[in-house]
Amino acid sequence: MFPKGFKLGGISCGLSAKEGKKDLALFISEKPSAVAAVFTSNIVKAAPVLVDLEILKTSKKISAIIANSGCANACTGKKGIDNTVQTIKTVEQEFGFQKGSVLCASTGVIGEQIKLENLKAGIKTLKNKIGISDLSQDDAVLAIMTTDTRIKRFSREVKIKDGKIIIWGCVKGSGMIHPTLCRDGHNKLHATMLSFILTDANIGSKTLQAILETATCQSFNCTSVDGDTSTNDTVIVLANAASKTQPLSKSDLLKFTQAFNELTLDLAKAMVKDGEGAGKLAEIEVKNAKSKTDAKIIAQTIATSPLVKTALFGADANWGRIIAAAGRAGINFNPDKTDIFIGGIKVFKNGAPIKFDEKAAKKALNKAEIKIILDLHCGLQTSKYYACDFSYDYVKINASYRS
Amino acid sequence: MFPKGFKLGGISCGLSAKEGKKDLALFISEKPSAVAAVFTSNIVKAAPVLVDLEILKTSKKISAIIANSGCANACTGKKGIDNTVQTIKTVEQEFGFQKGSVLCASTGVIGEQIKLENLKAGIKTLKNKIGISDLSQDDAVLAIMTTDTRIKRFSREVKIKDGKIIIWGCVKGSGMIHPTLCRDGHNKLHATMLSFILTDANIGSKTLQAILETATCQSFNCTSVDGDTSTNDTVIVLANAASKTQPLSKSDLLKFTQAFNELTLDLAKAMVKDGEGAGKLAEIEVKNAKSKTDAKIIAQTIATSPLVKTALFGADANWGRIIAAAGRAGINFNPDKTDIFIGGIKVFKNGAPIKFDEKAAKKALNKAEIKIILDLHCGLQTSKYYACDFSYDYVKINASYRS
Repeated sequence: MFPKGFKLGGISCGLSAKEGKKDLALFISEKPSAVAAVFTSNIVKAAPVLVDLEILKTSKKISAIIANSGCANACTGKKGIDNTVQTIKTVEQEFGFQKGSVLCASTGVIGEQIKLENLKAGIKTLKNKIGISDLSQDDAVLAIMTTDTRIKRFSREVKIKDGKIIIWGCVKGSGMIHPTLCRDGHNKLHATMLSFILTDANIGSKTLQAILETATCQSFNCTSVDGDTSTNDTVIVLANAASKTQPLSKSDLLKFTQAFNELTLDLAKAMVKDGEGAGKLAEIEVKNAKSKTDAKIIAQTIATSPLVKTALFGADANWGRIIAAAGRAGINFNPDKTDIFIGGIKVFKNGAPIKFDEKAAKKALNKAEIKIILDLHCGLQTSKYYACDFSYDYVKINASYRS
Repeated sequence: MFPKGFKLGGISCGLSAKEGKKDLALFISEKPSAVAAVFTSNIVKAAPVLVDLEILKTSKKISAIIANSGCANACTGKKGIDNTVQTIKTVEQEFGFQKGSVLCASTGVIGEQIKLENLKAGIKTLKNKIGISDLSQDDAVLAIMTTDTRIKRFSREVKIKDGKIIIWGCVKGSGMIHPTLCRDGHNKLHATMLSFILTDANIGSKTLQAILETATCQSFNCTSVDGDTSTNDTVIVLANAASKTQPLSKSDLLKFTQAFNELTLDLAKAMVKDGEGAGKLAEIEVKNAKSKTDAKIIAQTIATSPLVKTALFGADANWGRIIAAAGRAGINFNPDKTDIFIGGIKVFKNGAPIKFDEKAAKKALNKAEIKIILDLHCGLQTSKYYACDFSYDYVKINASYRS
């Protein structure tokens, strides 16, 4: 499934150090689209993030997103900004889009200048390479991948009163993943992760932004591979109304929002599951906390604990590390009233160890998806956070990534 | 050098899973000593921490510290507390110490009950095994080690008006190291790390506590191996006045404080250098920040970044990861005015990459001790934080530690 009125594609233009790797993607809408976007809250922001933030101050309609891997264009000074502006200008001119209607996103090594001439030549090549086929979709996603091992794209169909709409999304992200995305790059919500979401729904930018921010809070901002928030994190949604349906009614808006939330959670979980060196996905649920924020902070502290993550890798039901991580989260709770479940098996009850089937726990921890529940029994609020294991491969990938 | 009036030793009594490993240490003072102590601020506190905190509410003089490895006695409920109380009682009875004059500390696996009978038998054995020799000192330190690879003990001699005093200290700690030690286990200052410091100085508990807290802030609480704060962290200082010198004069107190600060920093740095899987020690210095707290938070964020730590392991001068970590610390600074030095080599200037000698940087990063400086140029305050690299061995040690 792919929404109407969009085209996309990806090619190799020599930005990546890996020869022949696709490294330039383009997403275009036949008609100017409503737009919503969230960016990294890292105070060190890459050039494309800074430029997009400026464009979105005045532009209400967007026609295209140009995205590259191989170079983050972060910490590149005035030249980096100029290169992003030139990149955008080239897309506008080649495709005849209005000034201010193209956004840019980059991922790769920090601190290197982008090869602008390659980029410009790549944009020209892309004119004949974009389409709507499965191959085009794969090419676009391949072109934004760095250490990712697989293509991550999902779609949803939403049936509404006067027809149907499609939401399609892709995500890239494997390392430096601990998104804290927000509208203006300043607020605290929560890699390089890049995600582009396209829909043919008839919806305004303001409503779309609200839906994206809420969805981000319970998807991308509840994920961590390594606890490091990138300088380049970007999620952009385009809605071009090409479904030719009416503006969404209240009940249809609810359906759309639900599908959007599901899609972003699918993207977020797929990203963590494909985290650098990751072999499994852990869902950390903190239940019955005093507040949702308390629950989220505790879940996040467990999800980012190197000791918990290495125990996940070793399939060791080491609940001691889970409760110790919870205890350093800076949130007040009563350990003596706390229960812990690993893969549905109760391993800790009322603050004391209980006998459990170690073999069954090991089996649960060897699955591709693991649920860990911490029940605080001190309130009514719940939050979930998604993490991966910490493996030899994580060290291998990151001890030599730059060279 | 060893202070007068103390004896110590260590034996194996079968608490550790590793057969024959020394696992029970005893430190005694011939006369009741002034005492100062700081404990973990993790809200999940091991039984010995909880019991010590109770004892220190009323006891002003301490005669002994009993410390074990092999079992953390954390998350062990009421039985864990009873076992600690019984342990302390056994030392008091065997050595004829007053009630409330013995402290206890434990390290090892969380959630298992300690073998009390082994412990009691061990205490009796220790009566004939304690002394002041180098061998006794090594035995005591060996008995508190877990994944530590070497004995970490240091001493300082302080010449004062009417003689000399000795300060001796040892430390244990390799994993779950991110101390946030504080007086009452509630304030936020910042493993299982255990450190015991003995001095024959004539100094009161109140002054000693103030000196310990200040020293902790700039030593143990500025160290991180893996970002995980333990349930058992404990530093205890005993001062028994056995040097037979007068209470310290103002100028002698300054000398004592300086030596104490140096000793705790030596202990803290040795602990990080012997961190699980660590091959090198990095000193992260954040200079010219608006406040000391700003500098410390940024330095800590860099020191705990998995991407920075794997780059250290790979000897990769990846300053992009350093500035990206600084940028997610939640502290406001201007990246465009920031400089970064790795091993004395400037790699980043005014927010932009500069050409530097990659070979020289790699050489600096392959040394056992590395200095990283981030100069923010926005204030006058400086803070240092100590970290180690993140290696394959860290994963190896922690993927299978419990079994």
